[in-house]
Amino acid sequence: MKPLIVINFKTYAEGTGNLGLKLAKICDDVAREYGINIIVAPQVADIYRISTSVKIPVFSQNIDPVVYGSSTGHVLPESVKESGASGSLINHSEMRLRLADIETCIKKLKELRMISILCSNNIATTKAAAALEPNFVAIEPPELIGSGIPVSKAQPKIVLDSVNEVKRINPKVKTLCGAGISIGEDLKAAIELGTDGVLLASGIVKAKDQKKALLNLIKPLI
Amino acid sequence: MKPLIVINFKTYAEGTGNLGLKLAKICDDVAREYGINIIVAPQVADIYRISTSVKIPVFSQNIDPVVYGSSTGHVLPESVKESGASGSLINHSEMRLRLADIETCIKKLKELRMISILCSNNIATTKAAAALEPNFVAIEPPELIGSGIPVSKAQPKIVLDSVNEVKRINPKVKTLCGAGISIGEDLKAAIELGTDGVLLASGIVKAKDQKKALLNLIKPLI
Amino acid sequence: MKPLIVINFKTYAEGTGNLGLKLAKICDDVAREYGINIIVAPQVADIYRISTSVKIPVFSQNIDPVVYGSSTGHVLPESVKESGASGSLINHSEMRLRLADIETCIKKLKELRMISILCSNNIATTKAAAALEPNFVAIEPPELIGSGIPVSKAQPKIVLDSVNEVKRINPKVKTLCGAGISIGEDLKAAIELGTDGVLLASGIVKAKDQKKALLNLIKPLI
Amino acid sequence: MKPLIVINFKTYAEGTGNLGLKLAKICDDVAREYGINIIVAPQVADIYRISTSVKIPVFSQNIDPVVYGSSTGHVLPESVKESGASGSLINHSEMRLRLADIETCIKKLKELRMISILCSNNIATTKAAAALEPNFVAIEPPELIGSGIPVSKAQPKIVLDSVNEVKRINPKVKTLCGAGISIGEDLKAAIELGTDGVLLASGIVKAKDQKKALLNLIKPLI
Repeated sequence: MKPLIVINFKTYAEGTGNLGLKLAKICDDVAREYGINIIVAPQVADIYRISTSVKIPVFSQNIDPVVYGSSTGHVLPESVKESGASGSLINHSEMRLRLADIETCIKKLKELRMISILCSNNIATTKAAAALEPNFVAIEPPELIGSGIPVSKAQPKIVLDSVNEVKRINPKVKTLCGAGISIGEDLKAAIELGTDGVLLASGIVKAKDQKKALLNLIKPLI
Repeated sequence: MKPLIVINFKTYAEGTGNLGLKLAKICDDVAREYGINIIVAPQVADIYRISTSVKIPVFSQNIDPVVYGSSTGHVLPESVKESGASGSLINHSEMRLRLADIETCIKKLKELRMISILCSNNIATTKAAAALEPNFVAIEPPELIGSGIPVSKAQPKIVLDSVNEVKRINPKVKTLCGAGISIGEDLKAAIELGTDGVLLASGIVKAKDQKKALLNLIKPLI
Repeated sequence: MKPLIVINFKTYAEGTGNLGLKLAKICDDVAREYGINIIVAPQVADIYRISTSVKIPVFSQNIDPVVYGSSTGHVLPESVKESGASGSLINHSEMRLRLADIETCIKKLKELRMISILCSNNIATTKAAAALEPNFVAIEPPELIGSGIPVSKAQPKIVLDSVNEVKRINPKVKTLCGAGISIGEDLKAAIELGTDGVLLASGIVKAKDQKKALLNLIKPLI
Repeated sequence: MKPLIVINFKTYAEGTGNLGLKLAKICDDVAREYGINIIVAPQVADIYRISTSVKIPVFSQNIDPVVYGSSTGHVLPESVKESGASGSLINHSEMRLRLADIETCIKKLKELRMISILCSNNIATTKAAAALEPNFVAIEPPELIGSGIPVSKAQPKIVLDSVNEVKRINPKVKTLCGAGISIGEDLKAAIELGTDGVLLASGIVKAKDQKKALLNLIKPLI
């Protein structure tokens, strides 16, 4: 598999509404022009607008462990699927879920034939995450998120150990590496450590020139 | 003001995605044909699709007390506004919020010039709700929600006392009455008790013939 | 009523276990020697040990809105009462509760003939708090908590307006003023603004000489 | 190791305050008379009173992932330790925790040289639980809790598979089996399936004759 680049739009102004659509189109253009695997994860309110305008996969940033019925205000997995999402982040460090709910969400995404990216914060939770059999575990040491210090360079041992533990517990689970990733060098380091790609946000979303930042990131792949 | 009818689509299958859009169009047709004030509150993922297809106001079922930035997975108020929402339910019984967060949400909705409908569950919380100065307080005794037993008929005293307490604490705050409302008689009773309208869900969303159910509901107004 | 001084031990090391007991005894000695109204609020695990060793009232820092039955791990109001607590803080800024749960807790404390101190963070939530009819509303602007900047001096208008709003909405509800209170001057200012006392923590609990700090605080009262 | 019997007092009236103390003494008597390993898990408010009156280990029903400082109303692990607890349940089905918080709690209990019993609800979460390296994983299918239908007899395969998965992922982690356990036969079945003991509540706490129920439970061991 070609390395995967997942771009989390968070609730950044630059990733919301019209600006979110604009950014998704940049990602779409770059992905197709250079044959790169890019996934965008905009806010729930923007999934429909973006998924109907781009060809690359659109993921939700979260789903709630609820079913059709009386769950006013919650994010029904089926609702993001019908809006065009083909997967979801789960348990991002800014949206931590209960263990039992994580398991429910992964199972539900499988039923809906959607892809799950389960975020973890250290080696211990990465092992637990792998045991839950999501499609991807994305390891993101919280102290590096948004820091500009790439985990792949600052803490290569954590990434390496995480990749190995995931393989040991469940070889089918793929790994992403997040936190502080922004340039091509970070991506290259992540892949050399055995991950299947990166999860990043501010490095692209908040870049002055988003397209340039994205091209800089994917340099090792083109 | 003409009585207001707010229809909460919850996470009902009949109110999700394409079916949600279809239901919103029914509401839109009826509202315009008969000159009725109807607001629809679909899931966040469906706001954009619906708001770009109907003329009646579209509300969110919830917003989170977050600001532009690092709040992955949360419902940014600005995101639902950009998607076409002109207001939001807050603190629905299926999505209870912390007191401090309710206050933050109401203030934010005001800043965004959006309408707030704050749900409460009994007279004491209705008084607290009125003190927070939302545009509307919607009183919904939880034991009657989805029961088919209209609060306006089963517990007229609670509704009447709530209306009076709201007026005493803040006469500018309007009141809705929810829980168990489904037919014209319930709406009529609610208005006679001094409310400004009703908040309902299953009575319309899960009706075999949604249009017929809606026409039945608004009979006292046409 | 003589001014009330409520000392929240938080989870400070200096307020936990044996040290918590020692501090409670200092408060007890001072309260009785100088005829001052002091209440201590230690952690739940320490309530029994402290309440069986001192004469002054012991409050819980929190209760959960649960009843006898299957609520493993929650703080049953009856359990803190049986351990000797005669009241509880509710909705402290470090333990925010949902509006509906606050109302449930206040009602339960009344049933158990216990005293409720409901914390609020600004004028709007103070008004809502007063509407819920606790025994006390304690206003604590979160930005001043633990700051050493006394709210009674830094934001006298917030305190004054809060006191007036509480009186307007429910004259039976008393007010405390918290955040940044540590010395006699702060207490004096709070009382001159019309409050019935103060809620404080670090100013006493983390003082090098806790007894001296307490004597300094109560100077205007002796 | 002799089979372990952990009795969760929940917030049952029969396990609160004086009645909780009485029940703990019954457990203590039986444990010593018959040489059985019994642990009691009363409410936090009762830990001190009970731990100073019995010889058997006393566990907390929960701890919060907080440290010394400003965490008003939370259960500081050090506070229950200082009150005499030598371990804690974590993530009981009535007190579900976030994955990251579970990991923090297990690590903290290890630092404090306390025993951790991590509850799980199915095979998938049991595997994740084992990866987090608590001392015990207690598998409790939520649908059987309080049902009187023993998991060890109703769903032996779930228990057996759980035991095997735990061994595969981390052979040092021991297993308990909960939900519906009340009589000696249930305990026997649990042990034959390879568990190291049982976690139970209503079967003992709510029994008309608690001592008789306990003797009935331990019959296979004496």
